[in-house]
This record gives sequence, structure tokens and C-alpha cells, in this order.
Amino acid sequence: MPERSKAVKDVLAKFAKIRKKYTSPQVVTEFLFLLILGIIMALLSFAMDYTIEKCQKAHYWLFLELRDSAVLQYFTWVVFPLIFILFSIGFVHIVSPQAIGSGIPEMKTIMRGVVLHEYLTFRVLVAKMVGLTSAIGSRLPIGKEGPFVHIASIVATLMNKLVLPFSTASENEYSLHEMFGAACAVGVACNFAAPIGGVLFSIEVTATYFAVRNYWRGFFSAVCGAFAFRLLAVWNAKEETITALFKTNFRVEFPYDLQELIAFVAIGIFSGFAGALFVYVHRKIVEFFKRKPNIFKNMKMKYFIQPIAVSILMSTLTYPNGLGQLMAGELTPKEKLDTLFDNETWAKLGYIDESNVVVDSQEGWKHPTVNIFATLVIFIVTHFLMSALAITLPIPCGIFMPVFLIGAAFGRLVGEAMASLYPDGFHSGEKIYRIVPGGYAVVGAASLSGAVTHTISTSVIVFELTGQISHILPVMIAVLIANAIAQWLQPSIYDSIILIKNLPYIPYVGTNNKQLRDIYVEDIMIRDLKFVSYTSTRKDLENDIKNTNLKILPLVDSKESMILIGSVQVSNLQDLLNNPEAQGTSPSPNADGSSTYSCHKTSRCNLFPADKGHSAEAELQHVSSFDTIELDAENKSCFEQTDLLVNFGNCKINPSPFQLVERTSLYKAHILFSLLSVRRAYITSYGKLVGVVSLKELSTAIQGTLEHRHERIHSPVRNTKTQMQEHLLSQNEVTPLVD
Amino acid sequence: MPERSKAVKDVLAKFAKIRKKYTSPQVVTEFLFLLILGIIMALLSFAMDYTIEKCQKAHYWLFLELRDSAVLQYFTWVVFPLIFILFSIGFVHIVSPQAIGSGIPEMKTIMRGVVLHEYLTFRVLVAKMVGLTSAIGSRLPIGKEGPFVHIASIVATLMNKLVLPFSTASENEYSLHEMFGAACAVGVACNFAAPIGGVLFSIEVTATYFAVRNYWRGFFSAVCGAFAFRLLAVWNAKEETITALFKTNFRVEFPYDLQELIAFVAIGIFSGFAGALFVYVHRKIVEFFKRKPNIFKNMKMKYFIQPIAVSILMSTLTYPNGLGQLMAGELTPKEKLDTLFDNETWAKLGYIDESNVVVDSQEGWKHPTVNIFATLVIFIVTHFLMSALAITLPIPCGIFMPVFLIGAAFGRLVGEAMASLYPDGFHSGEKIYRIVPGGYAVVGAASLSGAVTHTISTSVIVFELTGQISHILPVMIAVLIANAIAQWLQPSIYDSIILIKNLPYIPYVGTNNKQLRDIYVEDIMIRDLKFVSYTSTRKDLENDIKNTNLKILPLVDSKESMILIGSVQVSNLQDLLNNPEAQGTSPSPNADGSSTYSCHKTSRCNLFPADKGHSAEAELQHVSSFDTIELDAENKSCFEQTDLLVNFGNCKINPSPFQLVERTSLYKAHILFSLLSVRRAYITSYGKLVGVVSLKELSTAIQGTLEHRHERIHSPVRNTKTQMQEHLLSQNEVTPLVD
Repeated sequence: MPERSKAVKDVLAKFAKIRKKYTSPQVVTEFLFLLILGIIMALLSFAMDYTIEKCQKAHYWLFLELRDSAVLQYFTWVVFPLIFILFSIGFVHIVSPQAIGSGIPEMKTIMRGVVLHEYLTFRVLVAKMVGLTSAIGSRLPIGKEGPFVHIASIVATLMNKLVLPFSTASENEYSLHEMFGAACAVGVACNFAAPIGGVLFSIEVTATYFAVRNYWRGFFSAVCGAFAFRLLAVWNAKEETITALFKTNFRVEFPYDLQELIAFVAIGIFSGFAGALFVYVHRKIVEFFKRKPNIFKNMKMKYFIQPIAVSILMSTLTYPNGLGQLMAGELTPKEKLDTLFDNETWAKLGYIDESNVVVDSQEGWKHPTVNIFATLVIFIVTHFLMSALAITLPIPCGIFMPVFLIGAAFGRLVGEAMASLYPDGFHSGEKIYRIVPGGYAVVGAASLSGAVTHTISTSVIVFELTGQISHILPVMIAVLIANAIAQWLQPSIYDSIILIKNLPYIPYVGTNNKQLRDIYVEDIMIRDLKFVSYTSTRKDLENDIKNTNLKILPLVDSKESMILIGSVQVSNLQDLLNNPEAQGTSPSPNADGSSTYSCHKTSRCNLFPADKGHSAEAELQHVSSFDTIELDAENKSCFEQTDLLVNFGNCKINPSPFQLVERTSLYKAHILFSLLSVRRAYITSYGKLVGVVSLKELSTAIQGTLEHRHERIHSPVRNTKTQMQEHLLSQNEVTPLVD
Repeated sequence: MPERSKAVKDVLAKFAKIRKKYTSPQVVTEFLFLLILGIIMALLSFAMDYTIEKCQKAHYWLFLELRDSAVLQYFTWVVFPLIFILFSIGFVHIVSPQAIGSGIPEMKTIMRGVVLHEYLTFRVLVAKMVGLTSAIGSRLPIGKEGPFVHIASIVATLMNKLVLPFSTASENEYSLHEMFGAACAVGVACNFAAPIGGVLFSIEVTATYFAVRNYWRGFFSAVCGAFAFRLLAVWNAKEETITALFKTNFRVEFPYDLQELIAFVAIGIFSGFAGALFVYVHRKIVEFFKRKPNIFKNMKMKYFIQPIAVSILMSTLTYPNGLGQLMAGELTPKEKLDTLFDNETWAKLGYIDESNVVVDSQEGWKHPTVNIFATLVIFIVTHFLMSALAITLPIPCGIFMPVFLIGAAFGRLVGEAMASLYPDGFHSGEKIYRIVPGGYAVVGAASLSGAVTHTISTSVIVFELTGQISHILPVMIAVLIANAIAQWLQPSIYDSIILIKNLPYIPYVGTNNKQLRDIYVEDIMIRDLKFVSYTSTRKDLENDIKNTNLKILPLVDSKESMILIGSVQVSNLQDLLNNPEAQGTSPSPNADGSSTYSCHKTSRCNLFPADKGHSAEAELQHVSSFDTIELDAENKSCFEQTDLLVNFGNCKINPSPFQLVERTSLYKAHILFSLLSVRRAYITSYGKLVGVVSLKELSTAIQGTLEHRHERIHSPVRNTKTQMQEHLLSQNEVTPLVD
């Protein structure tokens, strides 16, 4: 086929020209961008960890110093965190309420293409950093990985703005989207020093479809982040060299007996139910507080009532001289995890084995009279409720770490029970291999956090956190079981928050998506849609603009033929109306189908892609040359002649808006919407515009199919309905990745 | 908006009906399917490992037994593998030549939607299993992970055929595609007992876009496979309990000093270049043998000449009494890896440290007079060339394992050198932490295999293989560096094989894809395309069918309007011509645009999606009722009336063939083609068909843009051009995931 090969050559020649435009320094820039992003995030994470530790230590130091007066001691223990929490709430409320919450649900919708106004600004960054530091410094059981995903995305956005002047706008628009993926990965990675787990976790919680070509970005940035984060620890003489964050030293030659797998499976099953319960309890708490504040409606300080109550309750519960001594109240979360993952067995037949001299890890968990099992159970139950409560407060807060900690405690509980029941281990051979309860803690931590977040990559995170991978199969099995159960019962905590906040998002389709193939977009499309046409008069156009809150309207050939030409921005239409040159010709009585068609033909030659910014000047000249003189003279009167046809020649038209044919299945539409990050598709039938489907219809329809699995949640807002709500719910913003 | 909410309710009611059709047992079936797939693959992998080990041991046993006669010893050492290799070649050639090679490149194209005929049948399974066992049994430096990806896919296909009678066809078509993802993961996982690495590696080498919703399938199946695989080892009393395959016992409290990172980075850089060189050398060898056999063109046994030469050469090189003693020739690959990952330091100032009594791991590597470094260098150089040569033989062969082994040897070399240079380690504190050369071996193995295959997940595989994750940051850094360099210089070995075999595939777009956004599909589309129209006569249709080798043709309204109606299968058109009821009406002189349009209108009401299998019977009755009587009488003569219009009412029409508007960028087209697994897009302009773009045009165009990075490879075939070639290159097969 000589013709074909010639065509190929032509194309290659065209490529060669275009290639020159894109120089390799861009790749270097990208590498540098990712490197710097990783380092900045590591610095922020380390600085925050440092400050938090100081706050928490100061809290405990004060408690110890005041040991002479029980009242003062209790008072300080309660007031200290209260001040921190109130400061956090106040600061966030004043500086930027968008900083409230985890950030992962919002990033999930942003990655889907929705623009949340003012969500990735410097103000939010400051509010989130300060608010989060003081909130965690108060010893509230909240984490920092979710907020760090948000913070990393803000840093990437800000860095991108700095880079912007040095590159063209169109390149940047796309790369920013790719950067968000890397930013989410680095956000997780620099918390746990877990680059692989960070990448996988961020993919699982933010993406629906994932381009393998973006994979390395996340890895590179996450490795830089994790590396710098651990390097800072070495430089600050906290560590001798780079090691895992919660380094364990389990036995590798015989990590567990096969019979122990039954216990690991049991942990998986229990974690699955507990994870689903956590999501349910969290939602119920939100709903409860949503109804309640009406009583205090007229109070000015109503936002503070819930936090004050919650803070006092929690401080009282963890008070080291009270109930706190039964739940390691004096330990920081980091110390708690360190001890829970410890290599030693704490209990012998249910009681602390005092003979074992090496053991000092149970310090804090030990109580002279109370059984270690009782301590662990009390810790698990109270922290389960406290964590669910804490993440409903109007502060920046992560969900992962508290759940991870509860899971570790639960695993340790099962492990200690096993060690007590089988003090000589299971193995009947010559060597005696005792049961390692720390391994159970690792399994429990991975499976409960996996169940709550619906992710499998928590297993990778625990390996990276502990620096050991010997329990890989128990962890994987437990995490898979926990995920299966939790996904069957409840949405993930992030999807639950998306539903509670009513963010626009297409839900996870799951395994039973086949039914979506039997429904077509024509079944759910809105047939009664707004559009502009070449046969529109000025009056029509003015009405259209007035009656719509959309930012983009489809453009058709004529109302009769309805052939889709492209889409136009409403702002451009407004310019058209205000611009005297946009004046068109009056509709002649002979302006039938054929003349309309020729009009269409004319403008077609002059269509340029909207993002190129060309205006069809040639077309403009062609049409307006007839009445240039009259225009100057009759300028004013022309404006009143609202029954004249509008001349679209001057208007930027996007010639390939996202369109689907009417018989496209919902399944296909779902894939396309998810992948291409579009928010609206025009539905055509043989080139004719017949309807429109937006993200809203599609997500409602798909949520409908999932209704039988996940109970629908109709409570639209949490109690902190601030200006953020309006921003989050702004409907008509789109950043189409491909449009 | 009461209207909108009513519409939503209607949709929900429709969903409720549809939902009843899909019962939950399907999910259970899927779980069982994945579980059984994992277990079968573990059994196959274990059985093959067992047989291979026996063969390799027998080989060495024979060598030892014949120690009295040097000639006989050499003869046996050479002939034993020769027989195995020739058997493998012969068996594969007779049973199924599709079993030749790795399988990953082919699976990559299959996952892209291309149908390779006879590639996933039971014959191939048998050929691949037997051929691979005997080939590896011959001690050729080849692996089994690539073939196992292929084998797992075959097993999944066969299992699917068994399940088929119990479920509907349309469900199965989709699930099979999802199953391939899981099969590829389990294929890798059951080789290395590496579930996480298996999933990630299979995603990286086979997928371009990845649906996160398929993630758990791979994990579940891979965990089942890895678990069963290791369980079999325990049951066969090879292991005490489930542990890693190449268990290491590196120091965890201080795995490496920060200064050692420079050495790790150096390993990464070197591995990157070495990986690219490997791909280059492999391709050059293929090209060399492709030209060479012309000399032996008329010889019947020409296929065997290259293998015989290669086999004798390799056996001679590894002969344990000859050069083999300088490259651990008597060790099996598994033993080699075990020793290379060993905890002990072999060398002290370049010579074996004889004083160290614990050391027995360097047994096989030790030579009385030759320096350990010389041994390692000889091993690396010879095995580098031997591996590149071995994988060009017409046998089933994996690429990963030999490269992994070479990388480990290189890492060990660097590690030993470091240990010799700094015998007291780097740390100047109180405790002395010596350098661990085994850790270098791990880094080297991950980075060289990562460079050759262009994957980052090799890092995860090494952690799972060794059961230790202490070297996570050095491994990640080295792998990322190696990948960056290798990707810059050469395509991956799998992409290189795809190019060599000329398989239809859209190449990896890489990071500089922005230029694809400036080219539109209209620039590369074929404008001169075949189509059928409602105004086609029988004669036209017959000509069209005769002149095309396509299986699907677009259907347009009329040749003048060219409005795309849908697509029809050529086989259906043939039925139409053979069926007397398809007889249409003669074109009246008044059959102008408007009448054509009404015809179009009529048939539109009766269009059903092609996959439903409905024929538009109503339409048929409507049209054929006019001349039912005449048909019976004039049946024969009607067939001769070739200028009559064809009646498409009886023909299955797909109403939503994959279509793009003319101004769609190549970047978008690439995403859509990759994601939707389509092979052809009709290009429309305002509903009018103007061209067609197939996978071929798109991949040529995209390859063009990448030309400056990767040298184009025009050698289309390797020397084993068998019937497989024609199958692989069959052009017109499509399994559209969404069409």
C-alpha cells in the first residue's frame, strides 16, 4: 500500500515539526518538581511531628509536675487540650474553613475533574497546617495522613503556579492533574515513610481509573518524600540510620505456624465488621449533631459547644489517674503503636509476666490489679467511639491513624490471648517457636484500617512501617477478608463523607456492574435542554442566558435540524451580545433549511478549537462586510433589533464537546466520565442533539443501582455548614481533562 | 425540580427490575473462580519446579558419577541438556508453536483487545508446560514467570469455558477480560510467592490504563496462588512453615549506613545502562539469526542448527571442570540466588576469608586460585550474553529470572568490593556495623530486572522473595534510577519483542505525550473507506463484500448524506444476500434525499443492539409485506436483479459503533483506544462519516512521535516464522470491551 505509507510519512513529518516545540528540559523540570515536592512535604511532615510531640510531651510533663494537687492535675489535663482544640477550631474557622476534615474525599472529587473553589490555596494550607498541629497536639485520637494528602496537593498547586510563567498554559493544565496523583502519594508516603504503600493507597482512595504511565511520578515523589523524612530523623540524631518508622524485630525463620492462620482469619472477619460499624457510627454521629444544634440556634458560640463537650469527655476518659491508666492514657499514639508492635509477649495466662525482665514495652498498658486483656478491651472500645467522635469535629483531621491504632490493639489482644492459650506455641517438633503477639497486632492494624478505608494497600503500609514483611500472607488474607466484608456492608469512610457532604461524585461501581450495561444514556438523559442555534435571534439568546445558570451551552445548526455543531461558553455569548460587531442579519422569510445549512457550512470552515484562543476573524469579515457602514450609523438602533439573527462567527466554539450516542450504556458512560474527567455529555442521535447527561444524573442513576448494597444517605450536610458548603456544592465548574 | 426527581424515580424503578436479574451467587462464583485459578496455578508451578529440580540434579549427579572419565563426563554434561532442548523445540513445534517465547508481549496485546487465534487453547498449555519444563531442566538460563503469565491466562480461559454453560454469554465476555488481569497477577505470584509484587508487575507489564475496581481480583487470586504454592512446600516437608522463597536474615537494626547510598545509586545507574544494553543485544541477536538462516534455506533441519550450537556453547561454558568452576556452574539458579542473597561476607580484601567458619554459602563461587571478584565478573558477563541468546531460541522461555540473577551477582560484586574496601563499615560510633553484601545483591537484582522490564514493582518482588523490607529506600532509589535510564535509551524487553514480532499495539506514550494533543484524528484517518448505505444496491453490496477483508462495515444513510447509522458485520451482509427475504425495492427515480430519510427513520425505530441478537422483525414485515407473493414466484429472478436496493431491516445493526469527531486529539484517541479495547473508530463530522482510524494508523502515528527516543525497529519477524506468525498478524479481529 504505497498510499498508506506516504500518508504515514506525512504524519511523521508533521510530528517532527511538533516535536521541536517540546524540548527535553521539560522532563528535567518535572523531575525537579517532584523532587522538591517530596522534600517540602517531608520537611512539613517532620516539623509537624516535632511540634506535635513537644505539645504532647508538655501536656504530660505538666500533669507530672502538678502531682501534688489532684484537682489542679485534673484541671490541667482537661484544659490544656481544650485550649488547643478551641484554638484549632477558631483558627480554621477564621482563616479558611475549607481546611476542615480529612481532605481525601475532596481530593477524590477534584481528581474526578470537579473544581472546588478556594480549596487549594495558601490560606487553606496555613489553616490546615496550624489547625492540624494544634488538634493532634491536644492528644485527640486523629491522624495526619488525610490532611497531608490535601496539603501535598496544595503545595503542588502553589509550586505549579510558580512554574507557570516558564511554560505554556496548556501543558500545565494537564500536568497539574498528573501532579495531583503524585502529590497524594507523597502526602501518604511522608507520613509513614512508606513510599510503595503511599502510592498504592493514594491510587486506591482517589482514583477510579489509573494510567500506568503516571505510576513512576508517584513513586519518584514518594521515595523523595519518604527518604527526606527519614533523613531528617537521622540528622536530628533520633535514629542512627534510615530504618522503618515502627521497626519490629519479629522472628523471621519461623514467623507463624500454619494453625495460627485460623486466628488471623478471625481477625480479618472481625475487622471487616468493625470497619463497617465504624463508618456507620461515624455517619450516625454526624446526623445526630446535625439535628441537635437547632436548640442552640440563636447562640453565637454554637460551633464550640460540641467540641468543648467532646474535648472534656475525652480528656476525662484518658485521665492517667482515672480510667486512663486502663488504656495507656499517658502514652502518645506513636508510643502506643511502638509498644503494641513489640516483639515481647506481655501476658502469661492472662496476667503480666513479671518474671520476664526484658519486658518494658507494656509499661503504660500494665495495671497492678487489672488484667491486660481488660486494659486492651477498654482501650479498643473507648478509642473506637472517641475516634468516630473526634473526626466529626470542625478541625482538620485524618481518619487512618486512629483506626490503625485500634486495629493494632485488637490484634495484640488476640495475639496475647493466643499466647496465653498456647504458651508453648503450636509447633510439636524439636524446636519450640512461641507465638509472637506483635505479629497479630500488625495483622489487626492492617485489616481494620483496610476495612474502614476499603483499601488493600494498608498491608503494604504495615510492612513498610514495621520494616518486616514476614507476615505477608496472614496480613494479605486478613485484609482481603476484612475488605470483602466491609465493602459488602458499608461504603468506605471517604465515600461516606462524600455522600454526607453531597459532593458530586460517581460512586464505585463494584463487582455487580453488569446491570449498568442494560441501561442506556437515553434512559437517564435530560431531554429538555438549553441550547443556542445558528437560527437564534438576539432575543432568544438574551433569554437563554438569563434563564440558565450553566456556563457552557451546546450550539446546534437550527432548532429544526438540531445538528450539534459544538459548544460555546456563556461568557462568550454575553460578549457577543455586548459587542456591536456581533450584529447579524435579519431572518428573511426565505431563510429555510437550505440557507441555514449554508450558514452552517460557512462557519464550519472557520471553527477553531476553543482552547487555542483563535477567533474566526475571516468569518467575521465575510459576514459583517455587508453592513459595516450601517453598523456605525445605526449602532444603537441595531441593539434594539432583538429579532435579528446572531452572528456566531466572532464566537469561540469548541468543535468537539464530549458527546455520546443515545444507545451508549451507563457502564460505558461511567468509564468515559471517570476516565476523561468530564462533567457533561451531549447525547446525539445521528448527529442531532437529543439530550444531555451530567455527572449528577449519572451518579444518581449509578447510586440507584448500588442502593441495595449501601443504604442511601439523604442527610446532605454536617453541622459545620459554613461558606465552604456553598463552594463545595457550586455546580457548574468543570476542568475537563479532555474536552 | 419535581420533574427531575420524578425522572430519577422512574430510573430507580427500572433499576430495581434489572437488579433482580443479577443475583448475588455470581459474586460467589467469581470468588470461587479466582480461588481455584490460584490453586491450579500453584499446583502447576510447584509440579514444574519439582520436575525441573529433579532434571537439574540428575544432570549434576550424572556428571559426578562419571568422574573417572573426563571425556565421558564432558560428553554427558553437553549431551544431557542438548537432548532436553531439542525435545523442547520438537515438542513445541509439533504440538503448538504458539507456546514459543515469554507470553507477556502477547498477553499485553490480548489485554489491549486484539484476538490472537489459537493462542489460549489446551494444546498451547500442554506445549508450554512440557516445553518449558524440559527447557529449564536443561539448565538454560531462562525463567518461568513470563510463560506462567501465559499459562495462567490459558487456565482462566479454559475454566471460563467450563463455567460458560452456567451463565449468560454477555456477562462472560466481560468477566473474561477482567479475569485476564487476575490471571497475569497469579502467574507471577505463584512463581515467586509474591502476591503484591505479582499484581503490580502484571499491571505494569500488561496494562496501559487500569481500573482500580479490578484490583482486588488480582490480589485475591495472587494471594490464593502464593499461599497454595508455599503450602505445598510445607506439605512436602521442604519448609517448616510458610516463609519467603529466598529467605534472608539481614541485620534490621542498622541495615545500611547513609554513605552506602552512593554505592546503591551507582548500582542503579549501571543497571539502567546494562538493562538497555540487554534489550539492544537481544534484538541484535534476533536480527542476526533472522538474516543468517538463508544460507541453510533448503535444509530441513534448519530450525535446529541455532539451538544445537547455542546449547553446546552454553554447556561448554558452564562445564564445572572447565570455565564453569569460575561461575558456579554446578549450582542451579535457585541455589545461585540463595547464595548471592546470603547474609555473610565472602571476601576480605578481595580473597575468600577462610577464617570465617560459618561461611559455606560461597561454595560453588569459591575457587582456590581465582579471586572472588573475577568469578563474579566472569559469571555476569557470560550469563548476560547467554541469557540474551537463550531467550531467542524457539522454546518457551521467561526473561525475568536470568536478568534477576545477573543483577543479584552484580549487586553482590559491588557489595563484596565495598566490604573489602571498608572492612569495618562506615559507622564511627561505638558499635561496629559491617557492610552487608547480601543487601547489595538485593538492590542489584531489583534494579537490573526493573531496567530490562521497565517496571518499578520488581522492588516489591524482591522484598517478598527475601522476606525482608529493610533495604526499601536503597532498592526504590536504585530501581527508579535504573528505570529512568533504561526507559530513556530503549523500549522494555516486552515492547521490544512486540516490535520485533510486529504485534498490533499502541506503544507506551511516556512523559512527553503533550505533542499528541496537537495532532487530530482527521490528520491520520483514512478517508477512502469502505461502507454500505441504505441506498446500496445488491450489486454494490456484492462488490463491497468481495473487495474487503474487513469483518465489520459502517452503515450510512446514503452516499450523498453519509450520515452514520451504525455498523454491520460482513457475515450478516452475506446472509442478507443469500436470504431471499432480504430482497428490497427497486430504486424509484423519485428516491431522492427525503425518501431516503424516511427509510432511515423507519429502520431507526427497529434498531436493537447487535449483541442482543434481536432481528428487527417488525421492520421486515413492514417492508416485505408488499411483495411476499411475488417473492415466492419470482424468487430466482429476483436474485438476478442486482440493481435493487438492499433491505437492511433483517440485518443486525450495532447502533453505537465507536466513533470520534474529527477534531479529537491523538492523545484522547489513544486513551480511548487503550481503555475501551477497541480496534477501530469511525470519524464523524456533524454526524457524517468522513473516515476511519484503526489501531494500526494510531499506533504508527504514536510510534512516530516516540521515534526520537527509541530507535525504530523495522525487522518484522524472528527466525521462527511459523504458522503462528500468520495467526498473530491476522488483522481484522476485534473483541471490543465496549462497542
